[in-house]
Amino acid sequence: MIRIGIYGYGNLGRGVENAIKQNSDMELVAVFSRRDPATVKINTPGVSVYKTEDAEKMTDKIDVMIICGGSATDLPEQTPALAKLFNVVDSFDTHAKIPEHFDNVDKAATESGKIAMISVGWDPGMFSLNRLYGGAILPDGKDYTFWGKGVSQGHSDAIRRVDGVADGKQYTVPVDAALEAVRSGANPELTTREKHTRECFVVAKDGADKANIEEEIKNMPNYFADYDTTVNFISQEELNANHSGIPHGGFVIRSGKTGADLENSHIIEYSLKLDSNPEFTASVIVCFARAAARMSKEGMCGCKTVFDVPPAYLSAKSGAELRKELL
Amino acid sequence: MIRIGIYGYGNLGRGVENAIKQNSDMELVAVFSRRDPATVKINTPGVSVYKTEDAEKMTDKIDVMIICGGSATDLPEQTPALAKLFNVVDSFDTHAKIPEHFDNVDKAATESGKIAMISVGWDPGMFSLNRLYGGAILPDGKDYTFWGKGVSQGHSDAIRRVDGVADGKQYTVPVDAALEAVRSGANPELTTREKHTRECFVVAKDGADKANIEEEIKNMPNYFADYDTTVNFISQEELNANHSGIPHGGFVIRSGKTGADLENSHIIEYSLKLDSNPEFTASVIVCFARAAARMSKEGMCGCKTVFDVPPAYLSAKSGAELRKELL
Repeated sequence: MIRIGIYGYGNLGRGVENAIKQNSDMELVAVFSRRDPATVKINTPGVSVYKTEDAEKMTDKIDVMIICGGSATDLPEQTPALAKLFNVVDSFDTHAKIPEHFDNVDKAATESGKIAMISVGWDPGMFSLNRLYGGAILPDGKDYTFWGKGVSQGHSDAIRRVDGVADGKQYTVPVDAALEAVRSGANPELTTREKHTRECFVVAKDGADKANIEEEIKNMPNYFADYDTTVNFISQEELNANHSGIPHGGFVIRSGKTGADLENSHIIEYSLKLDSNPEFTASVIVCFARAAARMSKEGMCGCKTVFDVPPAYLSAKSGAELRKELL
Repeated sequence: MIRIGIYGYGNLGRGVENAIKQNSDMELVAVFSRRDPATVKINTPGVSVYKTEDAEKMTDKIDVMIICGGSATDLPEQTPALAKLFNVVDSFDTHAKIPEHFDNVDKAATESGKIAMISVGWDPGMFSLNRLYGGAILPDGKDYTFWGKGVSQGHSDAIRRVDGVADGKQYTVPVDAALEAVRSGANPELTTREKHTRECFVVAKDGADKANIEEEIKNMPNYFADYDTTVNFISQEELNANHSGIPHGGFVIRSGKTGADLENSHIIEYSLKLDSNPEFTASVIVCFARAAARMSKEGMCGCKTVFDVPPAYLSAKSGAELRKELL
């Protein structure tokens, strides 16, 4: 059994807890929270909740610590600190800061002799893997990544900060015509506006100026100004009833050429359609935790990413079973 | 530079030759053929063609030998024999016999201290990888593999063996309704007939009984009897003009559930749309040859499959470049 600790118990932590139950070679041994443990109710009978500062006393009870903090401020501190004590997995997703995060975590994990797997999930994660495989197979080609249809937490937060807004949700939607152009092998150059639209569902406060809210959202720099954005005003009841899920997904497409005169086109497409973004991310993390435990057992250490993991390490099946059943 | 030998120069061998030119860290150093080398014209200036029996004299000139023989009779002999002398890659694709092939090749490669990578391509190969990743991420789920639209060499050969047939091509076509049912998350049980149809383009010999040919094709056991098959009679000119390519492709879909009550559905879909089946297969093989060279340099040996290769080993880019550009 691979003994797992969960460090941080929000949407992602709960997803990891559920995913562990779907894998019979793993068990949850502890949840760590910044909240008062007495107030944290978890879904696994017999497992205790501890204060985060108690983690360091449990290094002999946990094979892999899954860190479920946020990328903005939590993970840059937590992952290097915990990698000094445990094999760890995180889902650090600030793409531009991955090299810096890697260096910090690698230093800690190399010193402690632990495996620290960073940026695990679907983007970064499975999408990154597909960008790598696609580019290695078809070096003369072009990568396209589309996101959605799905809820963007960052854009939903931005809407809710607008004056007069009581609540809101934002969906990122890939543009069908752009997807079709890419699938045709035409290798189009696409602008930000051509690739995605943004769909907002907004609950206005009583008496708020809706025209003003719509204007402010649509012109918000970085978040909405570069996109075709639609704003739909709805009631809080409707928002709760129809927009409380956290679906997401997207597409990674490699379009490339082969042949003596590059006369043949090939399209590799990987897509995800997810009812629950945090639960799917958690499911990816849990199988990479299995890989982390195995790599550690084999004596490896240091910071790793999805690029470094032999796929067989992710599965509970043996090499012979995998070759017989899946190859 | 990684020095590559090509062993067998048919469609796949020519594809490998083209793919090597698309990878600046690789060079073709020799082609080996069972034909008289004087009669074999290749596309790379300055590279010589040798008799297959000359390969053993060139062990110091070749880092990886790519074996481009057929799975029925060539590879079961060639891969174990050549793995005694070289790092090798093959595309052995008789799924049911992979475990036996693995054992034979592993014995040879372990004794010689070489890396032997078997069953590399897209199915087995990239499709297998996607079955593994999908199943590891979503253990409560179901795998679906669809092939096509594309030319099946085996079924085209079967058509051409029918009495009265001068020439013919067969396309395997996935059924849209079945694909949509899978994508809906319904996890349907699909029969052979529900998943694929078979489309035949047949040139009849002068005076042949077309009704009889059609009947014989449609009722051919193993090849066509379990499918809805359509037979179109066309002229040799039309066959040459419209059906001389070797396109293929297909879909691997994992449909799975997560959540405390498995209440959330997720669909992972990987698809290929290929103008040239052998050239794409060759492109996959060439990047796994890079991995074989690296793994050998690190002192590994024995038989490996796509499941054993850390994805980073496939790319010419450094780990730092991959993390910065693709993660």
